[in-house]
Order: sequence, then structure tokens, then C-alpha cells
Amino acid sequence: MYKIAFQGERGAFSEIAAKKMFGDSIIISPSFSFEEVFVKVKNGSVNFGVLPIENSLYGSIFETYDLLLKYSLTIAGELNLQINHHLLAKKNFKLSEIKKVFSHPQALGQCSDFLKKLKNAAAVPAYDTAGSAILALKENGVPAAVIASREASEIYDFKILKSNIQNNRENYTRFLVISKSRVKKQFAVPKTSICFELKSIPGALFKALSVFALRDIDLLKIESRPIPHKPFQYMFYTDLYGSLDDGRIKKAISHLSEISLSIKKFGTYEAGKTYKS
Amino acid sequence: MYKIAFQGERGAFSEIAAKKMFGDSIIISPSFSFEEVFVKVKNGSVNFGVLPIENSLYGSIFETYDLLLKYSLTIAGELNLQINHHLLAKKNFKLSEIKKVFSHPQALGQCSDFLKKLKNAAAVPAYDTAGSAILALKENGVPAAVIASREASEIYDFKILKSNIQNNRENYTRFLVISKSRVKKQFAVPKTSICFELKSIPGALFKALSVFALRDIDLLKIESRPIPHKPFQYMFYTDLYGSLDDGRIKKAISHLSEISLSIKKFGTYEAGKTYKS
Repeated sequence: MYKIAFQGERGAFSEIAAKKMFGDSIIISPSFSFEEVFVKVKNGSVNFGVLPIENSLYGSIFETYDLLLKYSLTIAGELNLQINHHLLAKKNFKLSEIKKVFSHPQALGQCSDFLKKLKNAAAVPAYDTAGSAILALKENGVPAAVIASREASEIYDFKILKSNIQNNRENYTRFLVISKSRVKKQFAVPKTSICFELKSIPGALFKALSVFALRDIDLLKIESRPIPHKPFQYMFYTDLYGSLDDGRIKKAISHLSEISLSIKKFGTYEAGKTYKS
Repeated sequence: MYKIAFQGERGAFSEIAAKKMFGDSIIISPSFSFEEVFVKVKNGSVNFGVLPIENSLYGSIFETYDLLLKYSLTIAGELNLQINHHLLAKKNFKLSEIKKVFSHPQALGQCSDFLKKLKNAAAVPAYDTAGSAILALKENGVPAAVIASREASEIYDFKILKSNIQNNRENYTRFLVISKSRVKKQFAVPKTSICFELKSIPGALFKALSVFALRDIDLLKIESRPIPHKPFQYMFYTDLYGSLDDGRIKKAISHLSEISLSIKKFGTYEAGKTYKS
């Protein structure tokens, strides 16, 4: 049975993502931080880690990008999860009574239209969506609610006061599966992730993209991250269609190395499916 | 006398940036959120807003990028501020007595090496560096400290228990000055910011960069931001050397419009100087 680490309390969207990927019969390993997930995968105490890398409304999750480079692990898979937020509370509270709503600031922001209509309730930022349930439980007697997943309502024995309260239904988070070693296999739609640091030459990024464009390799995403100790210089993270075993990709990366100070290959994996949370 | 809005409490790094840019004799308008700063500039209740756009360790500040597009204001200037963090406390506390350290999570992270050595002190995340001083003042009797700027120590009458406690001295934040209308003038080193949404065509980003590379226009930065209601499609924000009045830039933007769904010009301004906080 696989043991899977994710950041957050039970009921976190990362746990839901892990179960979509590996099924319900996994041993879960909730973790305090993203870095703890990387450490658990690195030292072998879990088989895989599942981490958010990008949200369709908020953009990239920088910390995951930086930790990918720091820990030199492999990307073994990905999936997209549609994020649905619900207002949850202990079974004795009514919607009109709610005085406080706990959740992660992003979740509060994603439900701002709904929260404006809850005139008597103050939004209280917390460090986790599912974890805010624990904060609400501590509000002895005060009618407190949380914004979190359907799974969190089951785990913490909350009822759903109102479902699907987010402003924008087109809210997807892309999750990565990380592992210690590369899985060699055939993929229906292979996707590869790399990152590189370019030499300081004119038009460097244009030249970097040309190594892919010249070979008709589709880039899906490019993200820049600052390099510590080199203010306002960047590492570029790129996702592309194709496998590291594919001759075209090998040639493109070899070409890229001519204009790069360093290149890191995170691996090839199956392009992700989309699931509902 | 200019009236300048910034996000945060008195003593925030944005206030320091505003004073480096406009001098000490300004009327300051501290604001609760980044969006409040944009609203104040838009409705004319202040002359300028000063907002962080990028940190050399943490990367881009997404919210500022998104608000730039939402409010259609002009970028009138920029500056880089070296961020120096200090441990501050009320005058009667000693370093060895400190039980809690309040600050913004990024500031806590940037001082993690120092905090590890403070064995009896718990790090407590707050929503603002300078504003955490107000939290510390509420800790009646508990020896609480904050991580914030030198200016915050003066404003809140705290003493500096330990100065320059950040892990990495190469910590710079780039700030933008936003205004309602474009300032037409000559710049020594003009810099221009635009953003664009590309058509869904193969190699779109490569083609977009080529309009600049072909004309020897230096791109300083490219940042992608998700487009709401179009999951995993992106707006690209670009900074380049040159003026919107320069023929080469005009031609490049006209060329870019052939492959873009939309282009927004944020303005031309003087490339920023670097100051110490």
C-alpha cells in the first residue's frame, strides 16, 4: 500500500488530489509544510508526495518550484483538481447565526461575493482550509463556520451550510506527484519538466525558446523564479510535451545547454487528467 | 505636497520606499490592502501609490500584477529597496527573555537562521511587518518582539534588540509608483512595461519574444499570470528597456498586436535606483 505525504490537515485539497491519483486505499501522511513533504519523500519514509504547483486563478505556487530544485526529486505525475468550496459548521448552527468564518486567505478571497452577503460574519484568515475547522472547534459557543472541502465536513463532523460558494467555478489547482527515483515507462501523452539558468547574453530567453520552437516542441508553461544571491536574475521552469527519451527533446536540451549555466531535468510523466473535488 | 498611498501600517517598507522616491515631506496614506491603494489613486484621493512588485528572494507579487491590469493605471516610476530586518521590542525587554516574535511570514522566513538560535521564542505569523508591532503591544506583560524596519522602531517606540537579522543580505524589493495619468518626459534610462494575451497558436511565446529580439530590444523580465475563466492560459507581463515614444518599440508593439488578443501599455518611466532601507 502506498504511503503518500501532503501538506495540510486531514481533508485538505492535497489529500483529495492524492486519493484521485492513487485511490482511497493509501496510507496518508499529513505534513506541516511543503518542505516536510519533500523531506519525507527524500528520506524514503513515504513513497510519494502530492503538492500544488499552480492554481488557475492565483497562479504558480512558488514554494513548490523552489523546493523542486532544492531537493532534486523527480516529478512522477500530475493532475488537475477542480476546487469547490463549501461553508461548513457544527450541526447546531444556522447560516444566519454565523459570526466568524475561518479559512485560508485564498479561499476567503475566492468566496468573497458570498461572504459579502453574510453581513454578521467576520472573515478570519487561517493557515489552512481544512485546518481552520480545528480553529472553529475551539470557538466554544461562538457560531463559527469554515470554508473547506466536502471531505473536511465528513472528517470533522461538520454539516454543509451552503455548498459551492466560490465566485468563479473555473477554479482548478494543478498538483504534482513527486518521487525519489524516475519511473521509466511509456506514457500516452508524455510531459517533461525542466529548469535552466541562462547565461547573461542578449536575447537569452528568446534563444532558449528557439531551441524548442525550431524542433516544433510545444511549451506548455514557462515560469521564472529569482536566484538567491543573484538579485533580479532568474531560473526558468518549463513544461513541454514530449519525453526525455525522445530524440528531438534530447537534441533541444543539448542545444539549450550551449546557452545555459545549468539545466535540471525533473522527469517525464503522464499529462494530468482533470477531476472534480 | 504629494499625498502617497501604500499598503501597511506606519513603518512599512512601502512607506520607506515612498520616502526614498518623493522625500520625507509627503503626506502618507497607509492603506489596508493593495487594492485600496489602487482605488485611492484611481479616485484621485492621493497623487501616487507605491507598491511592491517583486522581491529578489521570493519573486513576483502577483496581486500587484493583477491589480495593474484591473485598474488600468500608469506606472510612473520604480525603485529597488534593500530590505534589512531588525528584532524590535519594548525598551524593558532583554533578548534572552523574548517568548514570542511577531512578523509577516516572509520576514520570519527571511530571518529563520536567527530565530532558530532564539530557543525560547515562538515565531508568530502576522499580516504585516510593521503592523505586528501593534500585536506585540497587546501582549500585556509577555516578552514579545517583532521583526520589522528601523523606522518601525522609531514610530512605535521600540528598541532594536538585534539589527540585520536576515539570513541573506542580498534581499531587495522592487517597488512601483502608480499614477492616474501618464507623465510625458525625457528619461535617462527609460523602461517600459506592457502586458499581452497571446492567440492560441504554436510557438506563440517564442514569436512574441521575437518581435523584441529582432529589433534588439532588451527584455528585463517576463512574468505569466493566469487569466480568470480561461484555466491554464496566461497573460504575459514584460518589462523592456526603451520608451513607448521610441520608433523601434512602437513597431515591436504593432508587430506583437498581430499575434495577440490584447495588449495593455502601463507606461514608460525611469529605470529604478537602489536604496538601502
